Amino acid sequence: MLDEVLEAFLVAGRERRLERWMEFVRIPSVSAQPEHADDCRRAAGWLADDLSVAGLEHVAVEETGGHPIVYGDWLGAGDAPTVIAYGHYDVQPADPLELWDTPPFEPIVRGDRMIGRGAEDNKSCVQMHVRAVEALLATRAGLPVNLKLVFEGEEESGSANLDAWLVENRGRLAADVAVISDTDFFEGNRPAICLGVRGLVGFEIDVRGPNRDLHSGAYGGAVQNPVNALCSIIAAFKESDGRIAVPGFYDDVVELGAEERAAMAALPFDEDVYRDSLGLSQLVGEEGYTTVERKTGRPTLDVNGIWGGYSGEGAKMIVPAEAHAKVSCRLVPDQDPGRVFERIRAFVADIAPPGVEVTMRAVTDGLPSSTPIDHPATRAAARAIEATFGVPPLYYRAGGSVPVTASFGDLLGLPVVLLGFAPPDSQAHAPNEFMDLNNFETGIRTIARCWDEMAVALA
Amino acid sequence: MLDEVLEAFLVAGRERRLERWMEFVRIPSVSAQPEHADDCRRAAGWLADDLSVAGLEHVAVEETGGHPIVYGDWLGAGDAPTVIAYGHYDVQPADPLELWDTPPFEPIVRGDRMIGRGAEDNKSCVQMHVRAVEALLATRAGLPVNLKLVFEGEEESGSANLDAWLVENRGRLAADVAVISDTDFFEGNRPAICLGVRGLVGFEIDVRGPNRDLHSGAYGGAVQNPVNALCSIIAAFKESDGRIAVPGFYDDVVELGAEERAAMAALPFDEDVYRDSLGLSQLVGEEGYTTVERKTGRPTLDVNGIWGGYSGEGAKMIVPAEAHAKVSCRLVPDQDPGRVFERIRAFVADIAPPGVEVTMRAVTDGLPSSTPIDHPATRAAARAIEATFGVPPLYYRAGGSVPVTASFGDLLGLPVVLLGFAPPDSQAHAPNEFMDLNNFETGIRTIARCWDEMAVALA
Repeated sequence: MLDEVLEAFLVAGRERRLERWMEFVRIPSVSAQPEHADDCRRAAGWLADDLSVAGLEHVAVEETGGHPIVYGDWLGAGDAPTVIAYGHYDVQPADPLELWDTPPFEPIVRGDRMIGRGAEDNKSCVQMHVRAVEALLATRAGLPVNLKLVFEGEEESGSANLDAWLVENRGRLAADVAVISDTDFFEGNRPAICLGVRGLVGFEIDVRGPNRDLHSGAYGGAVQNPVNALCSIIAAFKESDGRIAVPGFYDDVVELGAEERAAMAALPFDEDVYRDSLGLSQLVGEEGYTTVERKTGRPTLDVNGIWGGYSGEGAKMIVPAEAHAKVSCRLVPDQDPGRVFERIRAFVADIAPPGVEVTMRAVTDGLPSSTPIDHPATRAAARAIEATFGVPPLYYRAGGSVPVTASFGDLLGLPVVLLGFAPPDSQAHAPNEFMDLNNFETGIRTIARCWDEMAVALA
Repeated sequence: MLDEVLEAFLVAGRERRLERWMEFVRIPSVSAQPEHADDCRRAAGWLADDLSVAGLEHVAVEETGGHPIVYGDWLGAGDAPTVIAYGHYDVQPADPLELWDTPPFEPIVRGDRMIGRGAEDNKSCVQMHVRAVEALLATRAGLPVNLKLVFEGEEESGSANLDAWLVENRGRLAADVAVISDTDFFEGNRPAICLGVRGLVGFEIDVRGPNRDLHSGAYGGAVQNPVNALCSIIAAFKESDGRIAVPGFYDDVVELGAEERAAMAALPFDEDVYRDSLGLSQLVGEEGYTTVERKTGRPTLDVNGIWGGYSGEGAKMIVPAEAHAKVSCRLVPDQDPGRVFERIRAFVADIAPPGVEVTMRAVTDGLPSSTPIDHPATRAAARAIEATFGVPPLYYRAGGSVPVTASFGDLLGLPVVLLGFAPPDSQAHAPNEFMDLNNFETGIRTIARCWDEMAVALA
């Protein structure tokens, strides 16, 4: 049962909320691209102002050595539990631009969607947290919990500075639980709580051959071609049954238990609908596992991008001087990103064709993690969802990576609840990203209710 | 022995010649890129004017459906033999621009080199032919042969319209021999005549997966990755011994004879110098063949370019919607480009991984060809080289493709002499392309002398 005054406040403020959210999305805070560094800083400043407007205290744009962290808290709840909530204000690059139906940084509401780069991931949840605090502070004497908001600016580029900042500010960040809002609802936009996320290791393979592009007629046949060589390496990563061929890759993988596999099998998931929605004739993955298992409970190896030589119109017949690929592996407990990277590096060194120089460098990583279903904080979040969305949540594992889960869990020693609100088809990281407006509006109420529930559950 | 008046004329005109050549190189006539279509037309107009200035007759910019052909002739030699000389005024794309030390279309003379895109390939030879005619007409009553100059504008993008134009104008193009000037001197810039060229077939492989880029966390593991799939296909093209694995690929290959292999082995070629000049630690190619054989007498398969997914800075962890590669094979007699393409297409269809759509389309092709060493026209060209460069030519096969060799040979039924003047390290098709000024200057004299020699040899 929601607070009626709170509800009236939220109903009255809907238009203004959408406006502010759109204003936030208009700032192209792409953390991976240096040309957007100023935009990231502008987004941080904008967000800090927004926190102050909402009534948070100790608001600060905190320097990290990279893009800053925006912090704000409300600590007036005395002995009540303390919650840290996390989101990020940076976004993915927008390209390929030509596949967007509308300009990525000119958000637009169409039907029940807000469309734009970051409209969902993760500016929606950041706004939901701020607006929930604002509504509670405006309609009550205060919050039911002590709340510390931490909004990062480098999540999409590997969170290089978050861990150091968390450790440095460990005292100030003392809490009873961390709530991270960067996960999805389940297929069909069903309210859900995520019990685990995959880790990741992202790396680049660079293959260098001749000291310049060579005429493929004059030199072809006499030298190793760096693109052909790179393709050989990438092809060797996988067996035809979908298993990753790198020796030792699976050594630390905790196999899915029978109970968890049964829970996954029970999830409402229509494989045909899923396949058709992707425009595919066939789903392909590791033999011996279901699609749900493959995309959440098993590790992967995917090329994220490859380039080398001529890609313009017509023909340019060269042996390219070099070739490059960005590759990433999603990892599951208890795989360690560093250890996996070293195994892949050793494998590549072993199989690299002669006549080219092959180097590898890690670009990003994150630990896998999981959260108990029966933790009081998880139960509290579940009650908040049921009270606002009208249905109990489903429980699932996420295929994606929220490395900060491990940061808050391992570094601050906190139980972590993954309470996200993204529709699973939001096209996060892809063109035409969107957020569902009902998820946004109801989610604000869920967050407010969650603080009420946690105040009781964690007391 | 050179005509002294001719020599004096050439000595006096050196600066003006360099100026005109640079003016020609400044026109970015990149035939493969539609945005340069007007530049190609401008180059054709400029060249036609140049032919008129030189004293050629019937000068015309001839429409072809693509970039025009520039034609001019001088037919005042009565019963003397008739020669067709061929070159092309179009050039390769200039990218990657960042690897040029000077702007590609702002030619500059440095030491004994003219540097710029097309400075060598093939605007140097086009200018040499025009200047040779100009010098002969200015210093004598006329030419010793009837001469028909044909300068194409689509050689670097596949000569799509040349064959039709040759057939259509067969009557007007009646001749005794074709001289094609688009080949190289030998390693060490030694004067040489090319006795054969490789053919080629260039094609694109397009791999399409999901209907959009997918978040590699949310979807990775459940779908086939188009880049991984493309790499598997490309890796399958070659055995570890360097042989091409496509069934039937070698069926029509005429193996090198013992005599030709001996001639190749006798060529002055220092493998260590060659390897070091390319910045390589090791040369790699088909087992059982020497480097010279591999790069001129054996067929190849090289990826010229590959692209798919994210190639910007930082990480963007997606399963890309599609992946593409440009691939080309150099072919030797008697391989047929169309037949080879069909064999590759059948192989790709056979090995394509599930869960993606793979299509292939041919982009360009050209027949391989060879020319007898003992033809009177070859002997005449050899004498012209010895008279001007002071050494007899070496004889070699070129690894590159001059598909027009087959056009003139097969369509017009002419013996073809490949009389080119490019230094073998000219970086044609690559950044910092250059032409050697001595090759240019002496080559003009060689061409003039060649017409004298052919007037006698073919009488």
